[in-house]
Amino acid sequence: MFPFHPPVFDGFSHAQYNTFDPVFREGGFIVRFSKSLIPTLKEDPREAELVSHRLLLRAGFLRSHGSGVFQFLPLGWKVIQRIARIIREEMDRIGAQEVLLPSLTLRDVWEESGRWEDFGPDMFRLKDRKGRDLALAPTHEELITLLARQYFRSYRDLPQILYQIQTKFRDEPRPRGGVLRGREFLMKDSYSFDPDWEGLKHSYQLHDQAYRKIFDRAGLKYVVVSASSGLMGGSASEEYMVLSDAGEDTLVLCEQCGYAANQEVAEGTREETPLPDSPFASRERVATPNVRSVEEVAAFLNVPVTLIIKGLVYVTPRGLWMVLIRGNRDVSESKLQKLAGGVVRMATPEEVRERFGVPIGFVGPLGAPADVTVVADLSVQGIRGGVVGGMQEDTHWVGVTPGEDFAVEQYADLALVREGDRCVKCGAPLTFRSAIEIGHIFQLGTKYSEAMGAYFTDRDGQEKPIVMGSYGIGLARIMASAVELYADEHGIRWPQSIAPMDVHLVDLFPKSAPQEGERLYRELRERGLDVLWDERPVSPGVKFKDADLMGIPYRVVLGEKALQQGEVEIQNRWTGERTRVPRADTVPRLLDMLAQEPTDG
Amino acid sequence: MFPFHPPVFDGFSHAQYNTFDPVFREGGFIVRFSKSLIPTLKEDPREAELVSHRLLLRAGFLRSHGSGVFQFLPLGWKVIQRIARIIREEMDRIGAQEVLLPSLTLRDVWEESGRWEDFGPDMFRLKDRKGRDLALAPTHEELITLLARQYFRSYRDLPQILYQIQTKFRDEPRPRGGVLRGREFLMKDSYSFDPDWEGLKHSYQLHDQAYRKIFDRAGLKYVVVSASSGLMGGSASEEYMVLSDAGEDTLVLCEQCGYAANQEVAEGTREETPLPDSPFASRERVATPNVRSVEEVAAFLNVPVTLIIKGLVYVTPRGLWMVLIRGNRDVSESKLQKLAGGVVRMATPEEVRERFGVPIGFVGPLGAPADVTVVADLSVQGIRGGVVGGMQEDTHWVGVTPGEDFAVEQYADLALVREGDRCVKCGAPLTFRSAIEIGHIFQLGTKYSEAMGAYFTDRDGQEKPIVMGSYGIGLARIMASAVELYADEHGIRWPQSIAPMDVHLVDLFPKSAPQEGERLYRELRERGLDVLWDERPVSPGVKFKDADLMGIPYRVVLGEKALQQGEVEIQNRWTGERTRVPRADTVPRLLDMLAQEPTDG
Repeated sequence: MFPFHPPVFDGFSHAQYNTFDPVFREGGFIVRFSKSLIPTLKEDPREAELVSHRLLLRAGFLRSHGSGVFQFLPLGWKVIQRIARIIREEMDRIGAQEVLLPSLTLRDVWEESGRWEDFGPDMFRLKDRKGRDLALAPTHEELITLLARQYFRSYRDLPQILYQIQTKFRDEPRPRGGVLRGREFLMKDSYSFDPDWEGLKHSYQLHDQAYRKIFDRAGLKYVVVSASSGLMGGSASEEYMVLSDAGEDTLVLCEQCGYAANQEVAEGTREETPLPDSPFASRERVATPNVRSVEEVAAFLNVPVTLIIKGLVYVTPRGLWMVLIRGNRDVSESKLQKLAGGVVRMATPEEVRERFGVPIGFVGPLGAPADVTVVADLSVQGIRGGVVGGMQEDTHWVGVTPGEDFAVEQYADLALVREGDRCVKCGAPLTFRSAIEIGHIFQLGTKYSEAMGAYFTDRDGQEKPIVMGSYGIGLARIMASAVELYADEHGIRWPQSIAPMDVHLVDLFPKSAPQEGERLYRELRERGLDVLWDERPVSPGVKFKDADLMGIPYRVVLGEKALQQGEVEIQNRWTGERTRVPRADTVPRLLDMLAQEPTDG
Repeated sequence: MFPFHPPVFDGFSHAQYNTFDPVFREGGFIVRFSKSLIPTLKEDPREAELVSHRLLLRAGFLRSHGSGVFQFLPLGWKVIQRIARIIREEMDRIGAQEVLLPSLTLRDVWEESGRWEDFGPDMFRLKDRKGRDLALAPTHEELITLLARQYFRSYRDLPQILYQIQTKFRDEPRPRGGVLRGREFLMKDSYSFDPDWEGLKHSYQLHDQAYRKIFDRAGLKYVVVSASSGLMGGSASEEYMVLSDAGEDTLVLCEQCGYAANQEVAEGTREETPLPDSPFASRERVATPNVRSVEEVAAFLNVPVTLIIKGLVYVTPRGLWMVLIRGNRDVSESKLQKLAGGVVRMATPEEVRERFGVPIGFVGPLGAPADVTVVADLSVQGIRGGVVGGMQEDTHWVGVTPGEDFAVEQYADLALVREGDRCVKCGAPLTFRSAIEIGHIFQLGTKYSEAMGAYFTDRDGQEKPIVMGSYGIGLARIMASAVELYADEHGIRWPQSIAPMDVHLVDLFPKSAPQEGERLYRELRERGLDVLWDERPVSPGVKFKDADLMGIPYRVVLGEKALQQGEVEIQNRWTGERTRVPRADTVPRLLDMLAQEPTDG
C-alpha cells in the first residue's frame, strides 16, 4: 500500500529536532531574543518624522518596503494580532459574523455604484492576462451589497452584521506618517443590514458601543466627533479620534460644552474680521505679474487679504462650479458636497486652463464661461470694492462688488471653521487640535442598496431597499496611536492589553545561577505567559536600553546582586518603579501586577 | 474638558441593545441560522464541476467573485480559521516566528532574483499613480531574502524560521476547481535561514514534522512524494498530496515498495514499445496537409506513432532548444530544467514562426537554424527511418535516422514516466493517481541568497551565503481536500478539528417545550462549544437536508417525541448513528463524543 499517514494525534516528539528551543504553545510563548528578527536600531532612522514611526522602526517592530507599504516583523505582528483579537471578541459580542472578501474585484461592481470614477487615482487598477479591468478593493461596500442583494431577500433575513479583518489598498497621493497612512493596510470593516432606519440606528449604536469597548480595552484615550461621510455617502457619521500632533485630521473642540467635530464638517459662529474700506474707487483690470498666492496678491496690491475674493473651480455632479470665498478662509469640501449633492473634486490645472483659458490663479467670476455655476461662501457677502481673478494671465480685477459686478447663484456656509470662530452651542471660543482617526462609523442608509438594487420584501409585502451602515477600524493606527500617546524619551510604553509580549525577561546571567533564566521562563510559560527572553551576549546597558525602547510593561531582571539575596527585580516600564521580590514569589507577584493596567495616569 | 473616554474594562451592558441575541464570546459561539449568511442551495450550481466546489457552494460556505476569486462566507471562514489555528500552533511549536509581508512589491526586488521575467503573465503587475512598476506578490522568497540580507549578518543570528499566513496573487491561465486553484488565495508560507546545508536539512525536517502534524490534525489522509522545484529553484523538494480525482497533479506510485513521486520528476524503468520496421526506404519530404497532432500525422502516413519523432521548442537559460522525443511520450519540464540548468518554458507559436519560419507542428531537426541546440530523449535512440517535421508548412520528412540524417547534441532522460513503465527500485509496474497538493517544501539552498547578496559572517570569519528553505501550505486546499475525501451523497462530512462549528442544534421546536432550544444552546455555550442553532421556521426535512449538506459531525435534534420521553437525539454525520440520551445527560454525553474523532474508518 501507499505510505499513507493516517491521523495521529500524539506520539510526536520534537526532542530530536530541537536545537534552538522550540516554543511550546501549550503554555505561553517564548521568544529567544538572539534567535529572533528583532532588529533594534541605535540611531533614529532618517525616513521617519513621527514619533510612532521612528520608535516602531527603532524597536524593530516593522520595516517599510517602498512608500506606504510595510512589513510587520515578529513583535509588530504580535501587537496587531492582539489588537485583532480584541476586535474579534467585541464584534462577535454584538452578533457580527466574520467573512473574508477578496482584494481583486471586478470593474463592473464599481461601475454599479459609480465609484470606478469617484475613486480616481486613489484606487489601484490592473488588468489580468485576458485584459479584464480589476481594482484592488480600497473598501467593500460594493461587494457586500452584492451579497445582500442576492441573499437578504426577506425581512426575516434581517438584521445582520458582517465583518472582516482584511487588507485594503489605496494609492494615497502622499503616504506618510509610517503606518498612519499606508497604501496597503489592515482594516476591520463591517457592514450592517437593516429593514429600516430605526434598525440602522440600533446597529450603529451597537457599533459605537463595540468601538468604545475596543479602544478602551486597547488602552487608548480618544474623543468621538461628528465627521464627514466623504466618498462613502450616506448621512450621519462619527469618528473616533486620538488627539496627537501626529494626526492629519484637525478637530474643532469646545472646551466649555464638549462640542467636538472634524474641521471638515464643524460648524461655528463666524467671527469675520471687519471689512476694511476698499482703496479702489472703480472697477479696473490691473496687471499682477509674478504673484500666485492670495497673500502675494494682497501684498502686491497693498490691501488686506480680506478684500480678496478667491475663486476655486470644482467638478461636481451638477457640472463645473466656481466657489468664491474670502481670502482668509478655506473651502470645506464636505459642506460643498452637501450643497452639490454628491462627490466633488477640485478641477486640475489642465481642466481649468481648458475651460477658462487662464492659469488657475487668475480665475474669476467676471468673464467666466456662462455654463459655470458661481456659488459663494457667506464670507463674500458684504465685500465692496474687492479683488477677483482677471480671467487673463497675470491680471486681477480690482474694485468689484458681488451682486453688482457679477452674479452669485447661491450663498451658503461653505467655509472651514477657523481659529477665532465660536461654538454654535455655547458661544465659547473653539479650540483646534490635531488628531489621528482610529475608527469611523457611517449611516449609509440606502445609497448602495438603491444604486445596486439590494431590495428585500418587508412584512407588508412591499419591496424596500435595505438600510445599510458601514464601519471601519485601522488596526495599525491603534498601534501607532498607542505609541504616540504614551511614548517617553526612552521609547515605547505599551498598554498591557496590546503589548507584544506579557513579560520581558532581562537575563544578565548571574554567575551564581547562570541557568536561572531558563528555569524562570519555564515557570512563566507554565502560567501561560508570553515571554521575551533577552539571552543575548551583550552588555546589561544594551539590554536595558532595548527594553526601554520596546516598551513591554513589565520586565523581570535576573542580576547577580539581587539573586545572591534570593531576589529578582520587577520593573514597571510605565512608572519606572523597581520592586525586589523573593525569587520564589516572582511568578505570583508578577501575575498580580499583570492583573492591573501598568499605566501611570 | 473634552469628552475623553478613559479605559473602562467593565460596566458595559448589552441588554439594552440586544434584539437579535448577540453572541457572547466568553463561552462558545452561537450562530442563529435565520440571522446568518448561510445561503444553502437546493440545486447544484452550474459553475462547479468538482465535488468540493459544488458542495462548498451549496452548503453556503463560499461564493465566487469572478474567475478564481472567492468570498468566504461565515461558515467557510470558520473552517479556514480553524485550519489557520492548527497551522499557527504547529509553526510556533517548531520555533517559527510569525510576520506579515506586503502584497504590493517593488519591481526592483523581482529583478534582483530574475523572477520579474520568469513569472511572466502569472504575476499580476500594476503601476501606481506615479507610474512605478509594482507586482502583487505570488510568493515571498525575494522580500524575505532582503530582510535576511539586512539583519542576519552573523552566524549568531542563525538559524531562524519566519512564517506568515497571507494572501497570494497568481494570474493562473486556467483557474478551476473552485478554491483548489484560485487567483487570490491564502497561503502559509515560511522560510528557513541556516548557516549550512546540515542546518537546512534540520529546518526542512522540522517543517516535514510540522506539516505531518498539521495535516494529521486536520484529519486528512495524504502521501508525501518527491517533487519538482519548478520556479522556486533549489534542490530537494517534497509535496504533501491528497489522492483525489479532483487533483490536477499526477502521482506515480509503486504499490509494491512505496515509491512515490510527482509525475513531473518521477523516475521509471522504460518499457519502450518495440520499434516497428519503417515502411520508408529512403529520406523524402512528403506533403502532410491538414494534419496537426502526432496521431493525425501517424494516421495520414499510415505508420505507428512510435516512428514519429516530435520536435518541441523551449526557451532555456542556454538559448533556444529543440527537444526530440518519441511520438508516444511527453517531455518532463522538470527534467529538462535540470539539464538546462534553470527555468525553461515552451516557445510561443509566434516565437517559433519567427525563428523557424514554419508553424509549430512542422518544426524538425533537418534544416533548423544552426544556433538552435538539438537534444533528445532516450526514446529517440534506435529509431530508424522515422518521421520529423518538414521545416516547410504542411510537410514532413520521412525515412530519417538520428545521427545519420541529423545530429543530436545530447541524449538524456527527458520523458515523463508513463503507464507501463516500472519502478526503478523494485521493478513492479507503476500506478498513476490524481492528487491535490496541500503542501510543498523546498530546499532552496543558496539560490536567492547568492542572487541577492544575503551573506553572513561565519564562526571562521568567512562571508558565506545563507542557506535557505521555503515551505508552503494552501489553507483552502486543506478545506477542499477534506470535502473531496469525505463527502458522501448527502453532503460534506467534516473532521471535527476543522468543522465550522462544534455542534449543530436542529431545533424542531417541540410543542411540549418550545423554549428548550434556547435552554440547550445556553448549556452548550457555557461549556465553550460553538453551536449552529437552526431555529428557522422551515420544515424538519429542510433542516435535516441542510444539516447533511453542511456536515458538522455531531448534531443534537430537539423533537417532540423524544422530548416527551425526556430525551434528545444525538446524530453522528459520519456514521449516521443516532443515539437517544436523557435530556439531562446531553451535554456530558456530547462532550464525550467530541473527545473522539467522528470518522467511520
